[in-house]
Amino acid sequence: MQGVDPAWLPDEAFRPIGTRRTLIRGSGPLVDTVHGEVAEACVRFGGSVSRDGSPEPYDLVLELTGAGSGGGDGDEAFTFERGDGRTTVTASGGPGLLYGFFHVVRLGDAAFQGSWERAENRPELALRMLDHWDNVAVHPVMGQVERGYAGGSLFWADGRARGELLGRVRAYGRLLAACGINAVAVNNVNVHATEARLLTDRIGEVAEIAAALRPYGIRTHLSVTFAAPLVLGGLTTADPSDEAVRAWWAQATARVYEAIPDFGGYVVKADSEGQPGPFAYGRSHADGANMLAAALTAADSGSAAGYGGTVHWRAFVYDHRQDWRDRTTDRARAAYDHFVPLDGEFAENAVLQVKHGPMDFQVREPVSPLIGAMPGTRLAVELQATQEYTGHQRHVCWLGPMWSEVLRFRADGESAVGELARGGLVAVSNVGDDPFWTGHPLAQANLYTFGRLAWQPHADPRQILDEWIHLTFGTGPSAGLHAILDGSWRTYEKYTAPLGVGWMVQPGHHYGPSVDGYEYSPWGTYHFADRDGIGVDRSAATGTGFAGQYAKPWASVYESPDTCPDELLLFFHHMSYGHMLHNGKTVIQHIYDTHFEGVEEVEAAREVWASLVDLVDPARHARVTERFEEQLRSAREWRDQVNSYFFRKSGVPDAHGRRIH
Amino acid sequence: MQGVDPAWLPDEAFRPIGTRRTLIRGSGPLVDTVHGEVAEACVRFGGSVSRDGSPEPYDLVLELTGAGSGGGDGDEAFTFERGDGRTTVTASGGPGLLYGFFHVVRLGDAAFQGSWERAENRPELALRMLDHWDNVAVHPVMGQVERGYAGGSLFWADGRARGELLGRVRAYGRLLAACGINAVAVNNVNVHATEARLLTDRIGEVAEIAAALRPYGIRTHLSVTFAAPLVLGGLTTADPSDEAVRAWWAQATARVYEAIPDFGGYVVKADSEGQPGPFAYGRSHADGANMLAAALTAADSGSAAGYGGTVHWRAFVYDHRQDWRDRTTDRARAAYDHFVPLDGEFAENAVLQVKHGPMDFQVREPVSPLIGAMPGTRLAVELQATQEYTGHQRHVCWLGPMWSEVLRFRADGESAVGELARGGLVAVSNVGDDPFWTGHPLAQANLYTFGRLAWQPHADPRQILDEWIHLTFGTGPSAGLHAILDGSWRTYEKYTAPLGVGWMVQPGHHYGPSVDGYEYSPWGTYHFADRDGIGVDRSAATGTGFAGQYAKPWASVYESPDTCPDELLLFFHHMSYGHMLHNGKTVIQHIYDTHFEGVEEVEAAREVWASLVDLVDPARHARVTERFEEQLRSAREWRDQVNSYFFRKSGVPDAHGRRIH
Repeated sequence: MQGVDPAWLPDEAFRPIGTRRTLIRGSGPLVDTVHGEVAEACVRFGGSVSRDGSPEPYDLVLELTGAGSGGGDGDEAFTFERGDGRTTVTASGGPGLLYGFFHVVRLGDAAFQGSWERAENRPELALRMLDHWDNVAVHPVMGQVERGYAGGSLFWADGRARGELLGRVRAYGRLLAACGINAVAVNNVNVHATEARLLTDRIGEVAEIAAALRPYGIRTHLSVTFAAPLVLGGLTTADPSDEAVRAWWAQATARVYEAIPDFGGYVVKADSEGQPGPFAYGRSHADGANMLAAALTAADSGSAAGYGGTVHWRAFVYDHRQDWRDRTTDRARAAYDHFVPLDGEFAENAVLQVKHGPMDFQVREPVSPLIGAMPGTRLAVELQATQEYTGHQRHVCWLGPMWSEVLRFRADGESAVGELARGGLVAVSNVGDDPFWTGHPLAQANLYTFGRLAWQPHADPRQILDEWIHLTFGTGPSAGLHAILDGSWRTYEKYTAPLGVGWMVQPGHHYGPSVDGYEYSPWGTYHFADRDGIGVDRSAATGTGFAGQYAKPWASVYESPDTCPDELLLFFHHMSYGHMLHNGKTVIQHIYDTHFEGVEEVEAAREVWASLVDLVDPARHARVTERFEEQLRSAREWRDQVNSYFFRKSGVPDAHGRRIH
Repeated sequence: MQGVDPAWLPDEAFRPIGTRRTLIRGSGPLVDTVHGEVAEACVRFGGSVSRDGSPEPYDLVLELTGAGSGGGDGDEAFTFERGDGRTTVTASGGPGLLYGFFHVVRLGDAAFQGSWERAENRPELALRMLDHWDNVAVHPVMGQVERGYAGGSLFWADGRARGELLGRVRAYGRLLAACGINAVAVNNVNVHATEARLLTDRIGEVAEIAAALRPYGIRTHLSVTFAAPLVLGGLTTADPSDEAVRAWWAQATARVYEAIPDFGGYVVKADSEGQPGPFAYGRSHADGANMLAAALTAADSGSAAGYGGTVHWRAFVYDHRQDWRDRTTDRARAAYDHFVPLDGEFAENAVLQVKHGPMDFQVREPVSPLIGAMPGTRLAVELQATQEYTGHQRHVCWLGPMWSEVLRFRADGESAVGELARGGLVAVSNVGDDPFWTGHPLAQANLYTFGRLAWQPHADPRQILDEWIHLTFGTGPSAGLHAILDGSWRTYEKYTAPLGVGWMVQPGHHYGPSVDGYEYSPWGTYHFADRDGIGVDRSAATGTGFAGQYAKPWASVYESPDTCPDELLLFFHHMSYGHMLHNGKTVIQHIYDTHFEGVEEVEAAREVWASLVDLVDPARHARVTERFEEQLRSAREWRDQVNSYFFRKSGVPDAHGRRIH
């Protein structure tokens, strides 16, 4: 699109296809999408595309083999092979053909060289979803996009769906399809008054967005408020066991499917941070979720499988009005304590959406103990691409390695990742109406990496990174970009809260340091630093017992400071400043060292970026340069505040005599 | 007025006059106001009022003796005497007669008993002013009233002057006149875009407000932006030495006086917290102020004295983007450093408006060293009735004793208060459109006390308090109310930041504790607490030198911890937790003790209030009861956070073994 960054789909990426001869076989809307893509590339680069199958030689055949519906719920797998000078992609469904096409785009010239054995490529996770925390009406505190750092909403402006920019929504869908994402929720999980009505009289606006995304195989979802029957329906209760309530949801859902036949389903934040939920009626979260699940699979929907919708029920339930004086309550325990007793009670089309860590998207957390603890429930893991706690897309912080660690985590220490697969992978989107999509141009890497990891959770994130760099920037600056991005998450970790303790951010907006900012708050987010030490004792023996929520071996690994990994030590234990880490440093010296190193690493990355000035287009280079200035200022502020705080508290001087204010 | 609390002018206060026979002699608008007041009282209580002077016996004679203009700038003095069964008030000006009338109201029946020798009563300070920090347009962060805790603005709503409520503005003027206030600035010193235009095309709205206040002898002032010639006039500079700029101000001022002939003048916050000012043009603040002073005394105004307007130039100039690492910059020094070199350069009708302390309305500060250091300049002292740092009008905090300490302070340790008199006394108003005027009904005491202290700075604040209690509540609950209010400022001080160090508040809104909230900020507000001690070394010998800005004896009193008063110790010195105060306690034990005591005192005050339930009208009682619940919750939060913070830092246990979390 004009005026919008092409991201990982620059024209040049289509040259290998656009200069060749392509045959497309099959029909359906997504086949048409593929055809349109190939045709446009051919117009640009001089190749040809045919759908009639006349027997001239082709370099590329894209073939729909089965009865695939061609809709968003068709088979997503494809095969890829090359022999006799011809590259062939086959799929039994439209989505599979679309993904196969983008597979060829990613391979570039290599797709047309040598021979490739036939290989099937299918997503390991069926649901690969982005949640947008976008508000229709500008929220007085949170603005247009809650935790959004990339301008306004892509979907909403001036209080309604931005019809004039649906072309941009379509372009967004195209980018998502090219990295494998197949679902989007278009509004904030905190559903305010205006947004509640998207479910009913404003569903037409959602349908407009769905229509823009559909050509790229993306199903649209909606965040709804559990109180909808009260707020919108005029009922006196939202009790999930009330027949009138169930009937209201059934009717509302039927009207949604009239407007959007391939509607994906609901996302619900219930009994969480002030949102309404089933607790008000003495019902369980399974009761609440199952009511919506039933509405989404109505028997009278005309299909054996019903509407085929899914309810995404968030497990982010905890006491956000905690008394900081109360050391017996541990927010980290909350999701497990609330949900594990409900295992097996959730409907088949209900997905429990669990944040990857037990707290809330800190730069370092252990993996949530819920993952692996609910074998009878479809779990989806929720990641956060939007950089709420990782630098607001002003800081370079490529999250691939963190997400990969989560996805490779084995709850029992042995089994494969498969346990995630049933519910899928979800990320909070980092995209807005910014010309670079993500504010910081390098934050596009997080979006791309998320999609590719959702497709293949075992993939090496560094290969994905290189893939993204190559597509987006070409080969020229690739070594420099890899150097800047690869370690950027650990760099960010170094200059912020140490050793897994988290939360040393400015309250409210969560940007920049405030070591005690959440220490005496009701949010359950404490570090308990005193003159002798810091950290939260979450052991079973002497602490809150959170460590005991894990299966073996993790319960015992985390239980003792002797075995707990350094990077999570203060998450699980309150340690003295003089405690010797496995890395051979004391806690306090580690704090000093990492904070000095973190800033030095930002300085080095900025230098590398500066050296790429002739290899990156000027607008993109200028934007990143400006962001690096702010990142460096902020990193120094983090370093100095954290070091000063702990020096004042501990009285221990830096072993290397560096300046601490 | 219906639906609005009568405050210190309940109907009953007019019974002594309203049951008697009154003669009013003289003419003019303010005499008409007095006549209207007496007539209304007589309608209610059966007395009589005459203006023709027929020779029947009178209980009260209110007589304008001189040629007094009857306008807002007439003589404000009056005489009061009683003999031969007749009470007589005389004045040479309408304002004097109005103040004399309210003097009789205050005295009540005593004004008509026994005999009183003739005594003249005149205000010691000519200017007794309230500044409203009201915005016309709701500010996205600060709302309708910046630092307002009493609902919306009294003057502005929905983006314009609230014509429908001008009756309420008039009632406000009446309350102010009854405690001696004679000037009001109607908009925020932070002048945003909408408010800037009050000076020009929207002056008519200001004139409406002025018309509502004029009958009670109150002159209206306007806050203006120094950048007005740029913002409103389309000029390319606001340089005060530029002829076009001076001409623009002259013309704008002429139009203001066409609309409001008794306009009081301008209030200016320049080069302060982001507001524009003369520094941008390399001019001094005297240059800036004098340009406006000249416009306000234009020679072509048709009067020998010119328009008679005054510019109030605020001395609140400091670096609000300070680096917390920089220990050489001390915000406390700023006003003195900026303004003392300019002494003698300000025009006669320019008033330099100085906050009472060197920082910003903390619950305890030393008196600003500017006071007494600029003999060639008219200084006005600015107090803050709105409780920005003293509990947001949710906490009882009667500021009379604090203000009295400021007014009794002698810069050289000896001379009288007179040095304040030339510029007057100003307070930031605590009033909004709340039915009780001030949110917390007991916060009315601050407004009343301010007016009475401005009239007579040496007055005993406790007598003023009793006067207010008696007028407002009658005699029934007076002992209880005195007990609640008298010590409430010291109670608040006890449970908040200790020993003069200040600033341990939540950033932004300034309500509730955050010990480190401003510690690493750019605002120049630090306490430097570490594991060994706390406080700011502002001595001349080893610190920032601020103590040396005072004349003797204060320079030497504050210079040494041995002589510095306990309550200011941490303002002037960094002390160890073990340092022994003059009160016989260590710093740390004093912190613990005062915080426990402060909460106990709130609990006791709440009990006293509860005991008054049958002596106070129910609505007022209910409102205060609700506020006490919040005050107690908040005071406990302060106690626990402050004690925990210092216990964690110092490691010193409470000597009495009380619970510290």
